[in-house]
Parts: sequence; structure tokens; C-alpha cells
Amino acid sequence: MTRMDDLPIRDELRGKAPYGAPQLDVPVRLNTNENPYPLPEPLVARIVERVTEAARGLNRYPDRDAVELREALAGYLTRTTGHPVARENVWAANGSNEVIQQLLQAFGGPGRTALGFEPSYSMHALISRSTGTGWLSGPRRPDFTLDLAAATEMIAERRPDVVFVCSPNNPTGTAVEVGTVLALYDAAQAAKPSLVVVDEAYVEFSHQDSLVPLLADRPHLVVSRTMSKAFGAAGLRLGYLAADPAVVDAVQLVRLPYHLSAVTQATALAALEHTDTLLGYVEQLKEERDRLVTELRALGCEVTDSDANFVQFGRFDDSHAAWRTLLDHGVLVRDNGVPGWLRVSTGTPSENDAFLEAVRALKKES
Amino acid sequence: MTRMDDLPIRDELRGKAPYGAPQLDVPVRLNTNENPYPLPEPLVARIVERVTEAARGLNRYPDRDAVELREALAGYLTRTTGHPVARENVWAANGSNEVIQQLLQAFGGPGRTALGFEPSYSMHALISRSTGTGWLSGPRRPDFTLDLAAATEMIAERRPDVVFVCSPNNPTGTAVEVGTVLALYDAAQAAKPSLVVVDEAYVEFSHQDSLVPLLADRPHLVVSRTMSKAFGAAGLRLGYLAADPAVVDAVQLVRLPYHLSAVTQATALAALEHTDTLLGYVEQLKEERDRLVTELRALGCEVTDSDANFVQFGRFDDSHAAWRTLLDHGVLVRDNGVPGWLRVSTGTPSENDAFLEAVRALKKES
Repeated sequence: MTRMDDLPIRDELRGKAPYGAPQLDVPVRLNTNENPYPLPEPLVARIVERVTEAARGLNRYPDRDAVELREALAGYLTRTTGHPVARENVWAANGSNEVIQQLLQAFGGPGRTALGFEPSYSMHALISRSTGTGWLSGPRRPDFTLDLAAATEMIAERRPDVVFVCSPNNPTGTAVEVGTVLALYDAAQAAKPSLVVVDEAYVEFSHQDSLVPLLADRPHLVVSRTMSKAFGAAGLRLGYLAADPAVVDAVQLVRLPYHLSAVTQATALAALEHTDTLLGYVEQLKEERDRLVTELRALGCEVTDSDANFVQFGRFDDSHAAWRTLLDHGVLVRDNGVPGWLRVSTGTPSENDAFLEAVRALKKES
Repeated sequence: MTRMDDLPIRDELRGKAPYGAPQLDVPVRLNTNENPYPLPEPLVARIVERVTEAARGLNRYPDRDAVELREALAGYLTRTTGHPVARENVWAANGSNEVIQQLLQAFGGPGRTALGFEPSYSMHALISRSTGTGWLSGPRRPDFTLDLAAATEMIAERRPDVVFVCSPNNPTGTAVEVGTVLALYDAAQAAKPSLVVVDEAYVEFSHQDSLVPLLADRPHLVVSRTMSKAFGAAGLRLGYLAADPAVVDAVQLVRLPYHLSAVTQATALAALEHTDTLLGYVEQLKEERDRLVTELRALGCEVTDSDANFVQFGRFDDSHAAWRTLLDHGVLVRDNGVPGWLRVSTGTPSENDAFLEAVRALKKES
């Protein structure tokens, strides 16, 4: 039998394991920040209508530039941020991971570096590596907030080509103040013309506003988004970005032609027609998230302030043992490798009750 | 207004334009090797059933490893090649372009090179460049067949890490003899342990057999495939590969997690249930392809032997002017930049008639 390490793979991949949360069959799965609410049936019906139409033309390549979809996404951003966003400002791909990959292929790559403030969304570092971009791990304060002075110092010293700011930050949950992002942007531009990518995957759950209105006059600022969370469509794999039209032109130089299938485009368009219903679920989830924070603190846990659909809680002497105990009680949460801390996604009220019950049991046992 | 070249994009992208055939609204579109037959209505109905089920669970991430789909693709390969292929031998992605990108990320990349014999499928070179892999352009004979002696000499001299063989070759149409591929494989292994990727996007239309039965005992051989052509599903963007399970393990180190959406997986599974019907269209298209070859030759054109669903024809003193004249007659074919030659996809009988009529007019005018 041939083993992977017998193959002529790249040296830096030797001994590595694929990224991804364990997919376990457990009663309560609160580990990947999915939206616990299935799409409403009227939306499923609309998806079926749109996909039927797409299936009848499936022998043809999809719209390579996803014009109708980008128009609809621009409309959504305009409506929810109060800032006019046009189709030319928007690009879409198979999940925000592919958006990030395309940005790094165009603006990062061999001989260039990207900086992120860790712990943060680990795919920023992983996709940097897989695109040959050098990775710089920036600092955070002990409470996981961004330390602006330390960050600008590092930017000035290391002069990265791409800077990632995740707001709200994953896995810690807290959003970054607008003023902090603006200061980082200015520091990055002062050091070197560089791209600043604000990952707003969870922004619909935040107490803070989106940075989309700041895009005007900042051609090196990019906001990345996803339909996986607020739109309850993790299975759809639809990520997008908003930026200066020149950035959209640039990613089109590296995107794989026809990267976005006709069924994906059709399904996303249907979901965007049901925005109001879906944002209604977001309000429910925010209430439940706040309940989780309150009750976890009442149970004696430390909790990072959350602007997302998940909550980071601790501290545990052995967070992996705590993860295992919760799993033994039928609740799967995420161990992101942040020592002392675990992350739980906001579920339905009854899932959250089951989780809190498991934490109570954990506290008793320890 | 910011122009793309004002941005800090990579130097090698400056002044480039995005890849892709012109998408023009023309009565007869025979430019992108699409299957002209829409999916049959019973298959559309089955897609709708499968997508309805997927849409009800769309709030959850898709099966990250696409297990059911890879099982079905393995079954298709086993049945059509007579060689046992297991799920562990198969990997799937958003179009064969993404399969190729993942292979190059794992086996090519900075400091490594890939070799292809040009003219060939131009994405092999483009994706090599976008993954930082050095590109080596290998030779063909004047009749576009592979020159084994020249190829093995170049392999011995340049020692590429990845070798692409497109069979049937696009845009020229001719398949490569099995013995030639085997000799290339042996030459490549003698020079350096390297990956040999046989792109079989059009193999269902070929007079020659697939190389899938040769995978046994050749852990560095990869066959890439697509559902865009024989399955009539260009809009689906479903590519796949068959190889040693260790190769599948390797691409999982670089694949974006959850790269394949739940609706894509559902639609592909539905199409695979209708394989027999779809392969029936392939037989019709092969007859029409052979008719195109015969009639083009009768009209005084040179035609490369075709094992694909398209035909390369010429020669023209000015192939772009000939392309334009055919377009003026309402028929869009492809100018792949091979001096003197154009490429036409096999359409429906009436589309092919319209194309042949346009060629007749072109011949009269010139």
C-alpha cells in the first residue's frame, strides 16, 4: 500500500492532517456555528422553483460572472448597511474560504506575507500557507481584544501585504471597534500599500455596525461575508466580498472560470428573496446567545463578550478534557486549541438548555 | 477611480485579462464544448427531489468528504471501465479546474514545475501559474499528435514535478495511445518521482479506452474527469479524479473544507442515477461529430482526427477573420489561438447544419 508520505507531495505537507472539526453523530451539535433553524418551507419551495429552472439549462455553463447574484447581494448590503453598494463592488465564490483564497492568490502568494491576530479564524493562516503566502501571527491582549499599539508596531515592522481582521472575531466572539479597524488600515497603508481584509462572517449577529460604509475612498479595504450563518445556509457554500470595483477585477484574474455552479447561484438567489424571514431568526439567535452568556457566567464560567452566534467560555485547566465531558453528556462543542477555552454555537432554546445542563454536570464533576 | 494596476496586486498579474471564451448572444453557440441536449425531464424531476431534501438541511454544513457522491462516481467508473474503483480512489471538486488546482497545490507550487504538451487545455498552464508552479511548454508534432521521443527527452532534461497529458486533447481532439501514456509515465518516474495527470474530460466520446484500468500499481498516475460533457451538466461544475487512495489523502490536505455544496452533491447524485440515458446522448453526439468531420473534409477543410465532442478544423490564413465571418453568419465557434485553426463543438443536427452552411458561405467568400 502506498502511504501519502511515499508520494512526491510538497515537503511542508508531510505529516499534516486535513483541517476540519470532527463530524460526530451526537444529539446536540453546537460545534461549527451553524444556524440551528432549517430553512422555512416557503423558501425551500422557492429554491426548488429556481433550481428546476437552472436544471433545465444545466447542459450550459453557468453565468461566469454571476451577475444576477452579485446584484442581489449588493442590494442586500445596501439595504442592511445604508451604504450604496453596486454589483461592481461585489464578488461571490464557494464559501468565504474561496473568496479568501482568491484574494491571497491575487494579493499574497510567494514572496509576500499576510498578518492575522491570533487566535482567530484558522483558515486565514491555512489558506495563506496553501497559497504560498508567508504567515505572520499577530498578538492579542489576554482578554482577546485587539491591542492597537502592539498591532500597529508589528505592521510597521513586518510590512505585511495582506492584513486580516476578523470582526466579530472567531473563536473569541468579540467585534472590533470601527476606530480600531480604521487605525489599522491607516497603519497598514503607511507601512506599504497592502490589502486589509475584514472578515465579517458573523456581523449580522453583532452589536457593532458593518464596515461596508467605510469602503468608499478606501480602495485597499475588503469586507468578506458569508451566507452560512445569518442566512442559515452553511450547506450552500456561498461567500462574497464587497470592495472597490478594482479589487473585484483583480480576483477575476485568478478565479477559476465558471467557479460558481448554476444550482448554487439559483439557490442563493432564492435565499436572498427571503432575507426578512432569515434575519428574523438572527434576532432570536441573538437573544439566545445573550442568554447563554448570562447563564454561563451565573454558572461561574468566564465568557468573552460575544457579538457572534457563538460564545467562548472557560476557563478549564484541561479544556480538551472538558470538551470530552460535554461530549459524554451528548453535547458537541468546539475545542479550537485556545488553551483554557471552548466555543459553543448558539442552538435552539432546547439545545442551549441541554448544553447548559451539561456544563452544570461538568462543574459538579470537576 | 481606482484602476486594477493601482492596487498592490502581484506583478505577474499586471496588465492581464481574465480567462474565458467570449459569452455572446448568438443563435448557434458551438464554442465551449457544451452538450447541446438539455437534461431529460425525469432527471430534472429527480434533481428537484434530491435538492428539496438537501435544502431542508441546508443550515448544516455539507458532507465534507462527499462520501455518497464519491461512492457513486466510483460505481460509474467501475461499470464503464471494467476496472474496480472504490470510493477511496475518487475525489470530487467544483469542476475539473478545482481538481487540477488542488493537485498542483499538493504536488506543484513554488519551486516546482509542471509540463504540458501545447496546444492543450489552457487551464493547465493558467492554474500552474496561479499556484506558483513553473510552467514548461512541451512540443507536439505538426499534426498535433504527441511526439514521444521529443517528450521523453524533455522530461529527462527538465525533470518536471507534474506532467499533464490531455486525452482526448483539447482543442485538437485526438486521443493519446495508451502505450504512449505508459511510456511517458515511465519516463517521468525515471527522471524524478512525479505526478502524471491524464485529463480525460472528453473520454466518453473517444475511440480509445480510459486509462483508469492502468491506475493499479501506478501510485503517481491520476485520471481527471468531469460531468460537464458526457453528463450534459456544465452548469453543475462537478469534476473528479481517480487515483491511488494516497493521492486522495494528499489533496485533502489542501482542499478548502466543505468545498462542495450540498446542492451540488445532490444534483450530481441525481445525474449519476440517469447515466444510461445520458450516455445515450453521447452516442448521438459521436455520430454527429463523425458527420462534421466527413462534411468539413468534403468542403475542403483540414480536420484533426477527433475523439472528443468537438472538431478542430482549418486551415485559415487568418483564423480570427474566419471566426468573425462564421459569427456574422450566426454561428459562434472557438478561436483557441492555434494559428490557422478553429474549434467547433458538436451541436444538435440542426445546429451542425447551420454551422456547415456558414462554413460553405465562408469558403465562397474567401
